[in-house]
Amino acid sequence: MEWTRKDLIGIEPLSREEIEAIFTVASGFKRILGRSVKKVPALRGKTIVNLFLEPSTRTKLAFEMAASRLSADVITVNADASSFVKGETLKDTARNICALNADMIVLRHSAPGSAKYLSEIVDVPVINAGDGSHEHPTQALLDNFTMLEHFDSLEGKKVTILGDILFSRVARSNIFSLTKLGAEVTVAGPATLVPKTFESMGVKVVHDLKTALADADVVMLLRIQHERQSSTHFPSLGEYTSMFGINKARAKWLKPEALIMHPGPINRGVEIDSELADSDRSVILEQVTNGIATRMAVLYLCTGGSMSALENSAE
Amino acid sequence: MEWTRKDLIGIEPLSREEIEAIFTVASGFKRILGRSVKKVPALRGKTIVNLFLEPSTRTKLAFEMAASRLSADVITVNADASSFVKGETLKDTARNICALNADMIVLRHSAPGSAKYLSEIVDVPVINAGDGSHEHPTQALLDNFTMLEHFDSLEGKKVTILGDILFSRVARSNIFSLTKLGAEVTVAGPATLVPKTFESMGVKVVHDLKTALADADVVMLLRIQHERQSSTHFPSLGEYTSMFGINKARAKWLKPEALIMHPGPINRGVEIDSELADSDRSVILEQVTNGIATRMAVLYLCTGGSMSALENSAE
Amino acid sequence: MEWTRKDLIGIEPLSREEIEAIFTVASGFKRILGRSVKKVPALRGKTIVNLFLEPSTRTKLAFEMAASRLSADVITVNADASSFVKGETLKDTARNICALNADMIVLRHSAPGSAKYLSEIVDVPVINAGDGSHEHPTQALLDNFTMLEHFDSLEGKKVTILGDILFSRVARSNIFSLTKLGAEVTVAGPATLVPKTFESMGVKVVHDLKTALADADVVMLLRIQHERQSSTHFPSLGEYTSMFGINKARAKWLKPEALIMHPGPINRGVEIDSELADSDRSVILEQVTNGIATRMAVLYLCTGGSMSALENSAE
Repeated sequence: MEWTRKDLIGIEPLSREEIEAIFTVASGFKRILGRSVKKVPALRGKTIVNLFLEPSTRTKLAFEMAASRLSADVITVNADASSFVKGETLKDTARNICALNADMIVLRHSAPGSAKYLSEIVDVPVINAGDGSHEHPTQALLDNFTMLEHFDSLEGKKVTILGDILFSRVARSNIFSLTKLGAEVTVAGPATLVPKTFESMGVKVVHDLKTALADADVVMLLRIQHERQSSTHFPSLGEYTSMFGINKARAKWLKPEALIMHPGPINRGVEIDSELADSDRSVILEQVTNGIATRMAVLYLCTGGSMSALENSAE
Repeated sequence: MEWTRKDLIGIEPLSREEIEAIFTVASGFKRILGRSVKKVPALRGKTIVNLFLEPSTRTKLAFEMAASRLSADVITVNADASSFVKGETLKDTARNICALNADMIVLRHSAPGSAKYLSEIVDVPVINAGDGSHEHPTQALLDNFTMLEHFDSLEGKKVTILGDILFSRVARSNIFSLTKLGAEVTVAGPATLVPKTFESMGVKVVHDLKTALADADVVMLLRIQHERQSSTHFPSLGEYTSMFGINKARAKWLKPEALIMHPGPINRGVEIDSELADSDRSVILEQVTNGIATRMAVLYLCTGGSMSALENSAE
Repeated sequence: MEWTRKDLIGIEPLSREEIEAIFTVASGFKRILGRSVKKVPALRGKTIVNLFLEPSTRTKLAFEMAASRLSADVITVNADASSFVKGETLKDTARNICALNADMIVLRHSAPGSAKYLSEIVDVPVINAGDGSHEHPTQALLDNFTMLEHFDSLEGKKVTILGDILFSRVARSNIFSLTKLGAEVTVAGPATLVPKTFESMGVKVVHDLKTALADADVVMLLRIQHERQSSTHFPSLGEYTSMFGINKARAKWLKPEALIMHPGPINRGVEIDSELADSDRSVILEQVTNGIATRMAVLYLCTGGSMSALENSAE
């Protein structure tokens, strides 16, 4: 299929074919990243503005690395929204960025909908690197791409997402992508963090860990945000670990071949025990590696790159 | 004419011919920025150090973008002066930077005169990106370049600069450039922020808004710096807006074809009403766009680029 | 000799021949840096991650400049360890970085041993840009390279390192390199900062300034860290200056041809008087310049660059 989107705002609007097209291109890039010279000229001459208006180190680094591997020039704006916009509206910020004539914009912003809003104002591609509690599409793509390196297909596969689901953009994007790819998704965790309303997204809601793990082909842990502990929804860290932390004993509830995933950084001893994080069934570092190839694919496709051109350059 | 300066420290020392030479080159670059490949090899192999020792997001971004479009390598130093110099004198900082053998230095610094001082110590070009309350020459260049896209000439044109003039490097640089280009400049605002002493710079000083707007071909609003409100010179924000904010009623005092400018970011509802900022007479976003082309021109000329070479590369 | 190391973790494990091999390559790069086009294609296509998990401006800038001159792509991560790792272990951070598939990592970290630890986990070259109180090998290399521009050999040369030796990684790395190169090293300063135990490193320990300066061919001042003043080891700044600050009168205790060095930034009037810092015998700015060439040499050799290839490219 031909990729026709200018932007990647979220997984929700994508078709299964579009998601699979990204994976095809990402596979090509992953092969290139295994070579000694890892850089391709695909985006030579293009300037990408990485507009990170919410703190981020890892996602920013991954986008910078992806752009660098594609030979793009990258300008990263690190600012909390307040200092960048100085009281300015998001619309003004967007129009200003547009006026700079960047070739592409990667946006991280605390406001849900900000990436979509920006994409409607500017003519150039906008990639959502996380917009509040809305979506974090490239995280879901790298997660599912990693699963597909272990399974031929996600059709019928059982994926449990475990943790603080309520405001998680990672969970939301994964629910969209996994269900489109045919997986059966369960969200699990304390009832305050995993309300029944998630069922409307086509997933099972489970509050008992053993049930959540029993049939899972993949268990995807979310990072516990320490800063959320003061919220009324959130139990204490110790309470969370005692009820939902994955330790050796509980890992036995999993099928032996089940994969353990985590978007990082891990709180060892909180969401997961050290031994398990480092065990064979953990694919956490594969996720990091795949974050470059999948982001390269997104940057490439949204700037009009074609799969056939990639095949030729990869030779 | 041939550009012979190594540095751009301020508008004050420039001749009208030099300013116009910058605009000619900027026009060439603006045409290139309208193409699909916006990058030219003019500064390939050169490393520019962006030394921002005073917080800045937008000017820094614009200089990074300009350098990137010229194929220069850019290294940006973000530091408040205190952490960079660690008690070191400006002279030591300057000599250290010189010893690094950068090909060009863009300096933002809180001390008036710092850019000139640096330029006398180092052999390579120094571009002033704002030195305290002294000058911000590239801002004036982009402002006047924008005006010249609307008027054939600034000869006899009436430009009103409105706001907190007293310590404004933007106002100072614009007064220098506009008067050199033949415009008639009025500075306007509360008497505490716009003292009569500005008349010595060859401009009219007006404290009544209606008079200030009456004949203007251009009204250039300055950004109200919230942090200046504690100063004894400064009225409250509400007081300022009630007396000098541009709203729909007051905009009728302007000629219908008068341009409204602002260096951004706008405080909507303070210096200007939303509707007017977005109206046809506002050229605020054109200013942002032109900030890239004019800065490219300055970087290019100060590293010895010639206009004829540009013409050839633009073909 | 052929350089075979993947990493530069410290000076301690290097042989004299290895140190001299770095200097040979650095000399080649210094010649290139004197040309109009200062950039070589040696690391084209490589992406270096500058992981600065402890604040640094100058060393970071020097590494960025060195990488830029070698045509590498550079991604700099500025973060205090706490925000980057978010409670994650160094091992996890290391493995995550490894998973990103950078071609090379430059690490500054507050933990002694962190660079070695990282180098054992990742397959790509790791360059130590300062690991706590352990080593700062590129600083010692640039210091000794600078000395060798003034002396044919360091064999038998007397070098006095003066100041807060106790926790200084600069002193440690210099002690290792200088003794390997045949110099006789004296460490000097207040007894609390320069304990007798340093004698086990093969250096003389002196607490009297006149004695420390008497025979020195080089006196290397360390920067007084203001933040260390609250420590029980440290005298007041005034007390330090009155006893160990180098002023005009005390400089007479030095041989007329002795060199004065300082890693910068200088506290004028504390470790050294202004006049002396700017005098002919001060080579402080040469140190800064040589910091680029020596770091280029290290980056180049650790990525497998050969001296013969350099000779060809330098023609």
